Amino acid sequence: MSRPSEDQLIARYLAPLATAPGADGLTDDAAVLPEGTGDLVVTKDMLVAGIHFFPDDPPGLVARKALRVNLSDLAAKGARPVGFLLGLGLPPDWTEDFLADFSAGLALDIAAFGCPLYGGDTVKMPGPLTLSVSAFGRASRTVRRNGAQPGDLIVVSGTIGDGALGLGARLAEREPGSAPDWLKLLAPEHRRALAGRYLLPEPRTGLAEAVAAHASAAMDISDGLAGDLAKLLKVSGVAGQVTLADIPVSDAARAALDLDPSLLTTMLTGGDDYEILATLAPAAWAAFKAAADAEGLPIAVIGEVSSGEGLEVIDAAGQSIPLGSGRFEHF
Amino acid sequence: MSRPSEDQLIARYLAPLATAPGADGLTDDAAVLPEGTGDLVVTKDMLVAGIHFFPDDPPGLVARKALRVNLSDLAAKGARPVGFLLGLGLPPDWTEDFLADFSAGLALDIAAFGCPLYGGDTVKMPGPLTLSVSAFGRASRTVRRNGAQPGDLIVVSGTIGDGALGLGARLAEREPGSAPDWLKLLAPEHRRALAGRYLLPEPRTGLAEAVAAHASAAMDISDGLAGDLAKLLKVSGVAGQVTLADIPVSDAARAALDLDPSLLTTMLTGGDDYEILATLAPAAWAAFKAAADAEGLPIAVIGEVSSGEGLEVIDAAGQSIPLGSGRFEHF
Repeated sequence: MSRPSEDQLIARYLAPLATAPGADGLTDDAAVLPEGTGDLVVTKDMLVAGIHFFPDDPPGLVARKALRVNLSDLAAKGARPVGFLLGLGLPPDWTEDFLADFSAGLALDIAAFGCPLYGGDTVKMPGPLTLSVSAFGRASRTVRRNGAQPGDLIVVSGTIGDGALGLGARLAEREPGSAPDWLKLLAPEHRRALAGRYLLPEPRTGLAEAVAAHASAAMDISDGLAGDLAKLLKVSGVAGQVTLADIPVSDAARAALDLDPSLLTTMLTGGDDYEILATLAPAAWAAFKAAADAEGLPIAVIGEVSSGEGLEVIDAAGQSIPLGSGRFEHF
Repeated sequence: MSRPSEDQLIARYLAPLATAPGADGLTDDAAVLPEGTGDLVVTKDMLVAGIHFFPDDPPGLVARKALRVNLSDLAAKGARPVGFLLGLGLPPDWTEDFLADFSAGLALDIAAFGCPLYGGDTVKMPGPLTLSVSAFGRASRTVRRNGAQPGDLIVVSGTIGDGALGLGARLAEREPGSAPDWLKLLAPEHRRALAGRYLLPEPRTGLAEAVAAHASAAMDISDGLAGDLAKLLKVSGVAGQVTLADIPVSDAARAALDLDPSLLTTMLTGGDDYEILATLAPAAWAAFKAAADAEGLPIAVIGEVSSGEGLEVIDAAGQSIPLGSGRFEHF
């Protein structure tokens, strides 16, 4: 098998992604980020095959997910993307086809989110494919997790629980025999929709300015709504009540829930939503909603912050739902 | 074996390294870099156990090397360190002792180089220990590889070849039976000095301002002087002549060369020097040398840039030394 050298690999597949002047076409050991106004926000997420994605996930989607989970962190802090660095650990059996698909996927999202490659490192990995993305953004105001105030509304973007159900759907695609009953009964288009949300999250970059302008606290939901909201409330020193019926749910997830109501816990505590969770003063809601509408992004009020501590999720009967540990544990 | 959770691990070992206000004690998903003047320079190097270091290298030195190779890139671009992000892929057998030693080592260099931790990600790695560092610096002027002009002097910091010989010395420490004759004959203090240079490079951060002020082109020497200089000359569209006798060599490397003159090729083409290679106009030399002296950092003129193409290294007999491919290939 003839494979390109490191220099060829970079020139052929990665340099075309480094279109910003400061990246110098990846011909140097370092890059210069553009000037800008506001906070320079930095974040890093690593993804490892077999842990954060399946080794047989399509390479283009793996690449896009690695970038998108970082863009999701930026958006939740109120930051628009500026660029990123890519650490790429290639396992012994990497192929040029893999790289071609990987870089083609990345090119799509670089264009879609206006977030060019600024550099990185490519190494031999005597282990699974490993991606380490450091992403940079600019925020007129960086929104932290710890600013929620009693009386604030609790809002989320998009729909909740698709990522966690999508992990199940993706598992069932790979090993149909292992599929639980609800997945066997679920309509194929719903199964595909859920698996698709797992494979390719939607970072809410379009909400970044609205978050910066209006949110008192924010984070992206990567480890489950229940656990992430509990965390935000705790560091803010406040309590929160969420109304279950107000949590937005996709058609596919609704169909799954109808087949198996016990999936609710998975949906509230599983990972991979990559939606924005924010708190804001009631007076700011109209402007926040208008900004989301202008971007065509769904946003919903799901509850309210109060003084005290702890998170309650209240069902239709007015009862508090038990959520166990409430948080997807990566580690 | 009881090991800390991800949150505990971060709180116990990594948060104490994140002392900058914008890092928010690693309690958030992103950090804010400080305001500053000049270019914001970014770089990333990944290090993988078994590829870039030995699995039994002391964890504190591994941590410091991972940071230092990035600081070396920054210095060669004329940039002072601002901070870094750390991606940490922990193999299945990681221990709390490992983390304690790793973070203690990192703390030393964070203090020594004024380069605090701003964030990162810690993941389970079903493979070797993997470190992915993204480092940020500020440069009054970012020096590229492609600015060398005919008539410029070629200068290097420190001494050349210790890293490559040190790799041999470190191999011999681990498998004494495999040691080549020169290492068996070399004085123990020289063996230790060489292994030490391999384990812990010296980024020339103190030269950053002088590089920014005076260099026409610069890079750090990570893949061997001969290959890296050939690369710099090529992208600058110029030729270069280096006088072998002018290349600075440590006492330990000199002793090794006396035992085995054929080591010269290894010293000129092996990796891991992490010295600065720069070109500058002759008129700038006095100021550059004075700046290096003020920092107590050794710097030497080893040759001259001319028009044309290619690199020649001339020995005492006036002959050009053959250097093979001339470059350490990582990949």
